[in-house]
Amino acid sequence: MNQRTVVALSGGVGGAKLALGLTRILPPDDLLVVANTGDDFEHLGLTICPDTDTLTYVLAGLDNTEQGWGRRDETWSFMDTIGTLGGADWFRLGDRDLALHVERTRRLRAGESLSQVTHDITRRLGIGPRILPMSDDPVRTRVRCDEGWIDFQEYFVHRQCRPVVRELAFEGAGVARPQPEVMAALAPGRARAVVICPSNPFISIEPILAVPGLRAAIAASGAPVVAVSPIVGGRAVKGPTAKMMEELGLAVSAASAAGRYGDLLDGYIVDEADGAGISVATRAAPTLMKTVEDKEALARTVLDFADSLA
Amino acid sequence: MNQRTVVALSGGVGGAKLALGLTRILPPDDLLVVANTGDDFEHLGLTICPDTDTLTYVLAGLDNTEQGWGRRDETWSFMDTIGTLGGADWFRLGDRDLALHVERTRRLRAGESLSQVTHDITRRLGIGPRILPMSDDPVRTRVRCDEGWIDFQEYFVHRQCRPVVRELAFEGAGVARPQPEVMAALAPGRARAVVICPSNPFISIEPILAVPGLRAAIAASGAPVVAVSPIVGGRAVKGPTAKMMEELGLAVSAASAAGRYGDLLDGYIVDEADGAGISVATRAAPTLMKTVEDKEALARTVLDFADSLA
Repeated sequence: MNQRTVVALSGGVGGAKLALGLTRILPPDDLLVVANTGDDFEHLGLTICPDTDTLTYVLAGLDNTEQGWGRRDETWSFMDTIGTLGGADWFRLGDRDLALHVERTRRLRAGESLSQVTHDITRRLGIGPRILPMSDDPVRTRVRCDEGWIDFQEYFVHRQCRPVVRELAFEGAGVARPQPEVMAALAPGRARAVVICPSNPFISIEPILAVPGLRAAIAASGAPVVAVSPIVGGRAVKGPTAKMMEELGLAVSAASAAGRYGDLLDGYIVDEADGAGISVATRAAPTLMKTVEDKEALARTVLDFADSLA
Repeated sequence: MNQRTVVALSGGVGGAKLALGLTRILPPDDLLVVANTGDDFEHLGLTICPDTDTLTYVLAGLDNTEQGWGRRDETWSFMDTIGTLGGADWFRLGDRDLALHVERTRRLRAGESLSQVTHDITRRLGIGPRILPMSDDPVRTRVRCDEGWIDFQEYFVHRQCRPVVRELAFEGAGVARPQPEVMAALAPGRARAVVICPSNPFISIEPILAVPGLRAAIAASGAPVVAVSPIVGGRAVKGPTAKMMEELGLAVSAASAAGRYGDLLDGYIVDEADGAGISVATRAAPTLMKTVEDKEALARTVLDFADSLA
């Protein structure tokens, strides 16, 4: 049977929670997680892929759950030292995390694709399902604030989301080629479902959909497309989603998030209190994933709902 | 008064001991340490400069004296992790040490010279005297053993000096340009003395002398050239010096080491028992530098001897 692949589009922390739930209820070969690379950046001479790495650490069980990002059992000697040498220290890179960035950068410079490197590293860390970047070509999210355009990580980490967001752009997206295995999984009749994880629509999902051909492939796949709202009880669980909505002149609501995906959606999963104003089929479910059981339960709800829409 | 600069040629550990002694008895502006870059190499995508870094850590008081190499207060999380990701783990890089390699590599790729980067980093670490590479152009020591030519660190670290050395070559030396400040310090009448530190002649000092113009500049500087024997009591203090001498068909002796420098030498400092067969002026002194007082005393002896030869 061919129509088994669940294709999940994901950003970092929130998306990775649902991705982990999906890994727990699906055979490894039946899940393909497409990682946003719009927040990738070059820093200290290294190529850093925050969403891919969060997915990798979460799915490998190596994530630092207290800190909410990075690896567990981390040490910080590199970071303590780099500043004394005049290097940038505003983006926190743990010593273990750094090994991933150094090894990835070495392999990219040697000519391997981001897909190859990501696939190999996730395999070495024991992850069964595929995690693949949306594209092997660089796409870089940029933020227009009142002083002009700045790089995403400058906005997100260095300036801690303080600047008011006026506009977003995905540099390089116009010429980026979609990842071939992702496109193959989205070929008509091949996917069981496309899941849009509860990630920030503006900076995690829209960069994926901005890669030429990807949105159209999702629409043409014939698979039900189900998103999980990143808004729970009228608030963002984490990160600047709500602040961005306000700054971009949108209501802070699950409906606003759904509105970003337009007619791509077949179904939308919202928290109990968030169902108003949504034009596609909705299913209410507890979407705040605190425990691994929560993640697994939501993953089951998503797939049940998707299958019912097929 | 212009004729004050002491120019010291140095490899790693042994040379750095004498360099430290010299820093303790000379004003910072009067010492220039020329670091061998023949054992520099590219590893994990990073440019690593072992001799320069040993000098840097020793002169900054950051060296790991128990281990004999690397930084003190080091941690190894990066190293513990890189192997699990498929990266090479035969060259041990501590987490703090890594910060230097990452920051240097970033700056080199951005177009700065190795001299600029080295100078800036040594200044930030509080080192007064200049430490400069022999050249900003890459020179890479290669070792011919029975199976053919291999890279120096492959021989030195990965294979722990086990292969029999048949020949050495300094790749790139033919077209390398000597570091300009070093050449300026060696201009006729400018240097007080040229000190050849007790480093391995074959792999630490000869790469420096192989840079076109450097040997001739030393000879023409008019300054007394004094070497300190790396052989103490007929044995090498550390590293493969004695083994290399045997493999290259030389007697293991202080005289053999002096012979490598030929008519460049004006004076040679040997340990009490090692004076036989040397054709230049010698002075016997305790050359095994265990304490900082030993280092300082030997530095004083070297400079007194050099001044007496001027």
